[in-house]
Amino acid sequence: GFAKLDHHRPLRTGMPEVIFASGKTIEHVTAIFVRMAQAGGNVLATRVSPECAQAVLAAEPRAVHHVTARCITLEQAVPPQGKGTVAVVCAGTSDLAVAEEAAVTARLMGNTVELIADVGVAGIHRLLAQRGSLQSARVLIVCAGMEGALPTVVGGLVNAPVIAVPTSIGYGASFGGLAALLGMLNTCSPNVCVVNIDNGFGAACIATLINRM
Amino acid sequence: GFAKLDHHRPLRTGMPEVIFASGKTIEHVTAIFVRMAQAGGNVLATRVSPECAQAVLAAEPRAVHHVTARCITLEQAVPPQGKGTVAVVCAGTSDLAVAEEAAVTARLMGNTVELIADVGVAGIHRLLAQRGSLQSARVLIVCAGMEGALPTVVGGLVNAPVIAVPTSIGYGASFGGLAALLGMLNTCSPNVCVVNIDNGFGAACIATLINRM
Amino acid sequence: GFAKLDHHRPLRTGMPEVIFASGKTIEHVTAIFVRMAQAGGNVLATRVSPECAQAVLAAEPRAVHHVTARCITLEQAVPPQGKGTVAVVCAGTSDLAVAEEAAVTARLMGNTVELIADVGVAGIHRLLAQRGSLQSARVLIVCAGMEGALPTVVGGLVNAPVIAVPTSIGYGASFGGLAALLGMLNTCSPNVCVVNIDNGFGAACIATLINRM
Amino acid sequence: GFAKLDHHRPLRTGMPEVIFASGKTIEHVTAIFVRMAQAGGNVLATRVSPECAQAVLAAEPRAVHHVTARCITLEQAVPPQGKGTVAVVCAGTSDLAVAEEAAVTARLMGNTVELIADVGVAGIHRLLAQRGSLQSARVLIVCAGMEGALPTVVGGLVNAPVIAVPTSIGYGASFGGLAALLGMLNTCSPNVCVVNIDNGFGAACIATLINRM
Amino acid sequence: GFAKLDHHRPLRTGMPEVIFASGKTIEHVTAIFVRMAQAGGNVLATRVSPECAQAVLAAEPRAVHHVTARCITLEQAVPPQGKGTVAVVCAGTSDLAVAEEAAVTARLMGNTVELIADVGVAGIHRLLAQRGSLQSARVLIVCAGMEGALPTVVGGLVNAPVIAVPTSIGYGASFGGLAALLGMLNTCSPNVCVVNIDNGFGAACIATLINRM
Amino acid sequence: GFAKLDHHRPLRTGMPEVIFASGKTIEHVTAIFVRMAQAGGNVLATRVSPECAQAVLAAEPRAVHHVTARCITLEQAVPPQGKGTVAVVCAGTSDLAVAEEAAVTARLMGNTVELIADVGVAGIHRLLAQRGSLQSARVLIVCAGMEGALPTVVGGLVNAPVIAVPTSIGYGASFGGLAALLGMLNTCSPNVCVVNIDNGFGAACIATLINRM
Amino acid sequence: GFAKLDHHRPLRTGMPEVIFASGKTIEHVTAIFVRMAQAGGNVLATRVSPECAQAVLAAEPRAVHHVTARCITLEQAVPPQGKGTVAVVCAGTSDLAVAEEAAVTARLMGNTVELIADVGVAGIHRLLAQRGSLQSARVLIVCAGMEGALPTVVGGLVNAPVIAVPTSIGYGASFGGLAALLGMLNTCSPNVCVVNIDNGFGAACIATLINRM
Amino acid sequence: GFAKLDHHRPLRTGMPEVIFASGKTIEHVTAIFVRMAQAGGNVLATRVSPECAQAVLAAEPRAVHHVTARCITLEQAVPPQGKGTVAVVCAGTSDLAVAEEAAVTARLMGNTVELIADVGVAGIHRLLAQRGSLQSARVLIVCAGMEGALPTVVGGLVNAPVIAVPTSIGYGASFGGLAALLGMLNTCSPNVCVVNIDNGFGAACIATLINRM
Ligand SMILES: Nc1ncnc2c1ncn2[C@@H]1O[C@H](COP(=O)(O)O)[C@@H](O)[C@H]1O
Ligand SMILES: Nc1ncnc2c1ncn2[C@@H]1O[C@H](COP(=O)(O)O)[C@@H](O)[C@H]1O
Ligand SMILES: Nc1ncnc2c1ncn2[C@@H]1O[C@H](COP(=O)(O)O)[C@@H](O)[C@H]1O
Ligand SMILES: Nc1ncnc2c1ncn2[C@@H]1O[C@H](COP(=O)(O)O)[C@@H](O)[C@H]1O
Ligand SMILES: [Mg+2]
Ligand SMILES: [Mg+2]
Ligand SMILES: [Mg+2]
Ligand SMILES: [Mg+2]
Ligand SMILES: [Mg+2]
Ligand SMILES: [Mg+2]
Ligand SMILES: [Mg+2]
Ligand SMILES: [Mg+2]
Repeated sequence: GFAKLDHHRPLRTGMPEVIFASGKTIEHVTAIFVRMAQAGGNVLATRVSPECAQAVLAAEPRAVHHVTARCITLEQAVPPQGKGTVAVVCAGTSDLAVAEEAAVTARLMGNTVELIADVGVAGIHRLLAQRGSLQSARVLIVCAGMEGALPTVVGGLVNAPVIAVPTSIGYGASFGGLAALLGMLNTCSPNVCVVNIDNGFGAACIATLINRM
Repeated sequence: GFAKLDHHRPLRTGMPEVIFASGKTIEHVTAIFVRMAQAGGNVLATRVSPECAQAVLAAEPRAVHHVTARCITLEQAVPPQGKGTVAVVCAGTSDLAVAEEAAVTARLMGNTVELIADVGVAGIHRLLAQRGSLQSARVLIVCAGMEGALPTVVGGLVNAPVIAVPTSIGYGASFGGLAALLGMLNTCSPNVCVVNIDNGFGAACIATLINRM
Repeated sequence: GFAKLDHHRPLRTGMPEVIFASGKTIEHVTAIFVRMAQAGGNVLATRVSPECAQAVLAAEPRAVHHVTARCITLEQAVPPQGKGTVAVVCAGTSDLAVAEEAAVTARLMGNTVELIADVGVAGIHRLLAQRGSLQSARVLIVCAGMEGALPTVVGGLVNAPVIAVPTSIGYGASFGGLAALLGMLNTCSPNVCVVNIDNGFGAACIATLINRM
Repeated sequence: GFAKLDHHRPLRTGMPEVIFASGKTIEHVTAIFVRMAQAGGNVLATRVSPECAQAVLAAEPRAVHHVTARCITLEQAVPPQGKGTVAVVCAGTSDLAVAEEAAVTARLMGNTVELIADVGVAGIHRLLAQRGSLQSARVLIVCAGMEGALPTVVGGLVNAPVIAVPTSIGYGASFGGLAALLGMLNTCSPNVCVVNIDNGFGAACIATLINRM
Repeated sequence: GFAKLDHHRPLRTGMPEVIFASGKTIEHVTAIFVRMAQAGGNVLATRVSPECAQAVLAAEPRAVHHVTARCITLEQAVPPQGKGTVAVVCAGTSDLAVAEEAAVTARLMGNTVELIADVGVAGIHRLLAQRGSLQSARVLIVCAGMEGALPTVVGGLVNAPVIAVPTSIGYGASFGGLAALLGMLNTCSPNVCVVNIDNGFGAACIATLINRM
Repeated sequence: GFAKLDHHRPLRTGMPEVIFASGKTIEHVTAIFVRMAQAGGNVLATRVSPECAQAVLAAEPRAVHHVTARCITLEQAVPPQGKGTVAVVCAGTSDLAVAEEAAVTARLMGNTVELIADVGVAGIHRLLAQRGSLQSARVLIVCAGMEGALPTVVGGLVNAPVIAVPTSIGYGASFGGLAALLGMLNTCSPNVCVVNIDNGFGAACIATLINRM
Repeated sequence: GFAKLDHHRPLRTGMPEVIFASGKTIEHVTAIFVRMAQAGGNVLATRVSPECAQAVLAAEPRAVHHVTARCITLEQAVPPQGKGTVAVVCAGTSDLAVAEEAAVTARLMGNTVELIADVGVAGIHRLLAQRGSLQSARVLIVCAGMEGALPTVVGGLVNAPVIAVPTSIGYGASFGGLAALLGMLNTCSPNVCVVNIDNGFGAACIATLINRM
Repeated sequence: GFAKLDHHRPLRTGMPEVIFASGKTIEHVTAIFVRMAQAGGNVLATRVSPECAQAVLAAEPRAVHHVTARCITLEQAVPPQGKGTVAVVCAGTSDLAVAEEAAVTARLMGNTVELIADVGVAGIHRLLAQRGSLQSARVLIVCAGMEGALPTVVGGLVNAPVIAVPTSIGYGASFGGLAALLGMLNTCSPNVCVVNIDNGFGAACIATLINRM
């Protein structure tokens, strides 16, 4: 009784409910994961601590732990396939955890993902060198901390929707990702929309819906 | 020389550059509008004051002034057509200016638009009565001020992407739209992304790109 | 002499003073609890750590530790009885700690409590399925983190007072419950009032006064 | 079609929908007021400018303009009667607009109202002199700007629910009512709940529901 | 060379420089304390951790550790004597650390101190019972967290200067003492001034200068 | 009945209640001023607009309008005399309105005032040239906007209490005086306390109490 | 006596004191301007309203009004000459007022200025087309509002110091330039430093000192 | 593949890319350091924890660990030499970590550095005693926490560029360095620019570019 699983949601939204492990006990996460695994669909847990991952994998050995992404997945069904590539772009090495959360989620939901890392705007030639990959993506997820300028620049290079994910990477006046978030909301590229700080998962959900169209 | 028009952008992003009239003199807005009109494409000016609108229409009588939306449009070309309907939903009468900015922009960019107004979550039956319209839209733009809860509820009812637009409608602890913005960023519906406060224009741009897919 | 117990208060306000354990030493909490137990009324301690709970129960074995609620109670008197049911509603599993603090407090103060969990607005059918319970409550306490939309939707479904409790559940732009707090203060349901972030205790006090009327 | 009036709401919540005039055109306010007047119930408009009031009274001469409260009322039905007195307390002369908004609303909704003004905590004897009135109220609405301490002190003097209304009165570090709002949310009187800055109307709605019990 | 001790300052301001231990290594604090002890005046270290206190007392056995106040003092000189009593008032048990820091500092600087604890405004009779002590003080230091209302009420009861110290005690919307700070800055008692959050030391310095007049 | 004048306060605090004209109608200010004038004591109104000043002087021709200070005074009684000089120091020309409010208030309350203007810290020699005046004052009021550094520097030069008044002078990241306020609260001069932004009046009240000792 | 002109400063810092007209009366600005003009050096007034400009030019007909820059200059002396070019770059048409304030100031202080406008990062080719001009500048001033990304991208293209000026251009979550300010402070280009929002004047002062080296 | 080193940047900006160790695993930092060391240039890692430093020195024994500065350097090339002295000034002992980060970086980049510590503005004579050193520097880096006033005072004493570094030293209303940051941005010394909180590294980069001119 501690959780009302929303069995309707996959039908309504085309995506399974997902376990947000942060703030839940290891026992709760493991129990929910096993219950969902038995329901037969694909299962995803995000924000999983290493200890929690160990417990889940002990209970469900078919599950896979994605260390950088802090995710656990169980693939046992074939989701609707995305029509093109989802590009996941990130500014610095430290943004990789968020970018990988997006990539793992998007792959589990049936997308082909191309990850393009360490192309921050302070060395714009690195980004311009990826122009081909960027322009061939059907939808882009762009993760950046600090000043959060990357989605704006990427947005000006492509004519596809860009989903911007501010990350909490930074210090001082970054205020836990607030600077990047505000930067992205004030973008002057009109093809950019934004999700919560560090929300790689949510970005992948929207990208999936778009890529299925 | 006071403005470098970005003639490349329509080719790169599939959308014309647009005149953001707020903070520009009436003379500047009129001059840019006329220059763009001569370039032959469709033209859009947003955040136009009544005085400014009069001046633009005097200089270019074919233009149309959308009063609630605070926009001026000139249609002289056929844009790529969207494949389905864009639903523009808003919570209260006061959010209409932002919703209409989104609707006018989306129509000019080739979309069929359905406007669903005054369906705030405090009387949820009003929203549920529109379930058919909501679920048949290919992409949704949802505008709300005050507590900004509408996109989350709509997001749970559909399996299409929802673009949330916080509005500056409210008083006291709404802090100019901040409350609605934070509410939308913290949505628990994973198919919701967010644009800047009052940015109906930007929401329509993203919706257009998605609806063309 | 380290604490002036307010013996007048039960007489003035109809409720005993309560021990807020957070920030007090285990020794202080235990000593105050024992002193209050000897005074003969019911005793409540909130925000009790597991170690502190152990110490209190060792000193007063009749006391009960409510783990999820992080509370200790001692029942040895019959409080004035509430006339109807207090519904305690919460959005997600993670809000349960706050909801249980409210429920434990309300029960100790003489109310019949119905706990309705995991009915977040992203799957509105779950909430609508509880309409009966919601509408038969005499007063409602509604706890939610993240976007904090639940009290507004509940407020529109009932004609009883709704006490909204923002929780610190969330991440990124939730800013420790600020997003939920602002959302609730800006509610467009006029039967909603708000208490401090995570303040399940305070919500139960107000609900008790109302339910005694 | 510009507004969907929520005809269900009076039945669901026991209160008519109300016109929040701020941000609406004079024409819209007048038209909605007249339409509601024809529906036969009592009508309330809040945040009405002097010009708007003139237009509404011209269209509906039976309406009454409450200048300090910035409200217009039309009484043509007998609402359910409150069982006791609602005390409306305010700290300073400048808080009167908010206090009067609460008083006008509460009276229209069937309550006996006692207004107690200018009893700020810097001269506590003024407040203590009103102890009789305070303690005989069934529910209290307490409005204060600046440091917002009044509801806390009142809350300690009574055993009834206190609804605190922060006002935007103040300057400098009051930040438009934020200081008072935070003060009230952090109250150490457990019988205090809070509504939005300047929201006298909402406070009266909750007080009405409580006073009908 | 890691610290330039300001030997002029006692002459200029009538008070010795003091060691703010927070953020300094135990070795640094101990070394500076010993050096100052050798200079012959009284020595004060504030914000001392238990481990640091142990090290300082080992190096200078004449020093005294004030546990609640988190201070170490060494008395070896007679400071100028204050002319009256400094009252140190605090709202709750949890504010005692800050109040004691003020009291220890004020005593070391030559003042007679009267500590009045646990007289929060939610039970105003507790405060009124102390009216005699409050009114006989020459200067008052008033510490409070949460809503920070105590200095305002005290300020209205006396005709002496009141130095308000917001404390970081609270949770949720107290935002680490911000709510109390704003409340005190917006006081409507004109005899109240404010120092930084938790700054019992600074309050005592100002009180000392006033009490010497 | 619209204002309860606090006739006790002069007796309790040694200072008359004062009219804060901002946010009151001209009629109200004039009426209160006349009523207070008839009571026989000195009268002070602060934050008076030019139009309001004209009305008050028409009704009470003995009153004096201090234009820069935005104050009106009526002297008809001899207040207790301060024992020394109150120095009122300000950083720039634009801070003069606040400094003059302090000076006018302090003079009316029986103090000898020395005004030292335009001695901002960016040209420290200007300040050092005033060292004599600063050091001979019994208490100092220091007003500064922008970075708010002046009270800290002055505090290090004197051994008297310094009352810091942040002003709203500045732009951009001064956020209406917030930068100066925070700077003053974080002062490393221990003889500095702070009042609200632009609150020259309050600073003078505290200075008066101190200077009478 | 209302202003102590800092005659030492030109000697100490190599730059004349400048009149910041905002918040000063027209009479004060005019009088100070004339007094400075008589002292023989170059004179600069910033943030001058059109009415004020008219008054100053009437009193000193040799002065020049720079309309977009909102500045008045009087050139009557030859300042030390900068060794290279100062590039003043801005993102959009609306940032021109700030960019021109920087350009006018820099020219008056002896620099050759190249103004590069409307090269926002959403169309990066426009900026890359200016690479030659950017790389030949000895120091760069880069002004941008909204997301404030331009200085970071420019910083990555040059090996000269970049002085970033956030502008207040934007709306909604730009919060008066705060978003741009935070973006610039969190830049990942290590050759970027920042001045206050809209402070074109200050940026030019630093650029001048650097360009003289 | 986890990091794209920007080999172009030294050529473009005259400075090597640097390892920001905070948030990276010890293995990553060590691997990158070794790779950069093999590339033959000088190497710098900042924000290195003691454990991480041990690992790097084990892998590259020629590297030097600067404990206070939390940096590791490897010198194996001769950088372009600065033409004058870079003064690194700090307010208090606790600001030394940031000041040393700046000093270590500046020395590695070819500058002669003079460190001037513990000259906070509350004892201005300490700073004035260093006037000679300050005025002979070619560029100054000034670090301060708490009220952040030091760069403004230093700025008024010299005619060289001042790079202000706010530090996170402080408590209460310092809000992690925000108070110092705002103070520096609002400086009234026009030769001051600002970098992120605690960013000694960035300040040294800009100082290096200036000192090479
Ligand atoms: N209502 C609007 N809200 C946000 N951005 C807009 C709006 N209207 C136009 N824009 C953007 O502003 C750009 C024009 O800015 P500007 O060069 O200053 O005229 C356009 O290319 C759009 O991307
Ligand atoms: N300039 C001022 N700044 C702050 N408080 C003021 C000022 N002038 C008057 N006051 C306070 O405001 C109170 C009067 O408020 P009210 O009852 O609204 O007229 C006085 O008793 C003073 O304590
Ligand atoms: N546009 C500007 N932005 C920031 N500071 C300015 C500006 N113009 C002038 N100032 C500064 O303001 C000082 C003059 O202030 P004041 O004494 O109030 O006239 C000058 O010395 C400059 O340092
Ligand atoms: N202490 C520091 N503070 C700020 N930025 C730094 C610091 N140390 C290194 N950096 C920057 O961080 C970049 C490296 O980031 P990353 O690619 O995540 O290792 C370097 O190129 C520098 O520009
Ligand atoms: Mg990198
Ligand atoms: Mg409506
Ligand atoms: Mg759930
Ligand atoms: Mg009053
Ligand atoms: Mg207590
Ligand atoms: Mg000046
Ligand atoms: Mg443009
Ligand atoms: Mg020191």
